[in-house]
Amino acid sequence: MHSNHIFLKSSPLFSALSDEKIESLLEQANIIKCTKGRVLFLSDEPATHFYFLKFGWIKLFRETLDGAESIVDVLNDGHIFGESAMFSEDLYTYGAEAVEPSEVISLPLSMIKNELDTNLYFAKSFIRFLSDSRDNKEHEIEHRSLQTAPQRIGCFLLRLTDQKKKGPLTIHLPYDKTLVAKRLGMQPETFSRALTKLREETGIRIKGSTVEMDSITQLQEFTCSACSSGFPCRDLAKKGTCVGEHH
Amino acid sequence: MHSNHIFLKSSPLFSALSDEKIESLLEQANIIKCTKGRVLFLSDEPATHFYFLKFGWIKLFRETLDGAESIVDVLNDGHIFGESAMFSEDLYTYGAEAVEPSEVISLPLSMIKNELDTNLYFAKSFIRFLSDSRDNKEHEIEHRSLQTAPQRIGCFLLRLTDQKKKGPLTIHLPYDKTLVAKRLGMQPETFSRALTKLREETGIRIKGSTVEMDSITQLQEFTCSACSSGFPCRDLAKKGTCVGEHH
Repeated sequence: MHSNHIFLKSSPLFSALSDEKIESLLEQANIIKCTKGRVLFLSDEPATHFYFLKFGWIKLFRETLDGAESIVDVLNDGHIFGESAMFSEDLYTYGAEAVEPSEVISLPLSMIKNELDTNLYFAKSFIRFLSDSRDNKEHEIEHRSLQTAPQRIGCFLLRLTDQKKKGPLTIHLPYDKTLVAKRLGMQPETFSRALTKLREETGIRIKGSTVEMDSITQLQEFTCSACSSGFPCRDLAKKGTCVGEHH
Repeated sequence: MHSNHIFLKSSPLFSALSDEKIESLLEQANIIKCTKGRVLFLSDEPATHFYFLKFGWIKLFRETLDGAESIVDVLNDGHIFGESAMFSEDLYTYGAEAVEPSEVISLPLSMIKNELDTNLYFAKSFIRFLSDSRDNKEHEIEHRSLQTAPQRIGCFLLRLTDQKKKGPLTIHLPYDKTLVAKRLGMQPETFSRALTKLREETGIRIKGSTVEMDSITQLQEFTCSACSSGFPCRDLAKKGTCVGEHH
């Protein structure tokens, strides 16, 4: 369990817990290896556990009355999910599915509740976590309003890079292009047209799921001018925000 | 100060405070009457206070590098704003402007910080507030992805009504149509076309800033089928969410 201890402790949320607390948590934890396509839970199902994503990619989703799928988020290493059930009568507020091979740690929801009842330090970590999470959503709404489709793809790519990197760069799309389009709220045709335009405007090269560029500068100039976070991205620089969180 | 005490106490956030605490808070408070157009603060300005909106409409906004305005939210009675500065090195994360005559109570930001340092009950109220706020943003992103422009206007209108109301109904748009369009992330032309379509599809009648309909059923059927909150709206029914919060 040693590496799991390190994983949890490295998360801004759990760093507020003592080593003893983390050990006792891990005693109640299950480590779940997920193949691609595994559904961990569905929206509105009773929730007894929440999840810590050790590695991989997890899609959070909902369905509308007329059957369309809404992508709430696609998370990677270090994120937690399912905790929102706590505020919704212990029913999951979205479904969760592994979209790439993943490993998650399931932890009892009662743990967060108990800590929030007794541990002010943990409560403050949780407040910071929620506030960061709200900020990310806020920025996403801004991008939907003000960025063009090519700029939104540009932002998605920038969030997969080290912002300080100089010189040539290769990015691997972490999951299917169709899901990237959905995650960005685009129809497949819009996504495809936007990708072509992005290529023309910034000189990036796309082969399958690999994206190459001579430097990130041109991508930044094209994308970040239409964002209130500016550049270097204040949103990404913020403490506690994981690089993989495409706000 | 009596009515201000009642106002604060009625807010889910402040109901966690004792009467004595609210009295001492109000001793440090300023009541500010805002005419339409008054700017309370700008994004990135140093923040010493946050605000409670007693009545009126307050626009929260940011600017992108290339000068476009992003509307973060348009709030009404009972909401707080400016508190997010606390998580951003005491700099406001957006600007705030009264878009209708409004009255606000300004309260020291240090108050929230002190309470969070000492009052677990307040911390839990604050967690609930942030979680509701995150949910609202999440639903807004969903609507941007899956609802058509006429449906998004329909949702905006439904949020101004009593969901249980039977029979004919009149709604007054609370602020300028141009701002409604911006709040919904639409270009003026898109908004205008979408309004026409909404009228055709649901039989609502629009005269200036007044919207009339024979019942809300048709508007609901048209709008809520493309939303995961369903109908009656779970999002609006949620405790602690104010009716005016157009998620």
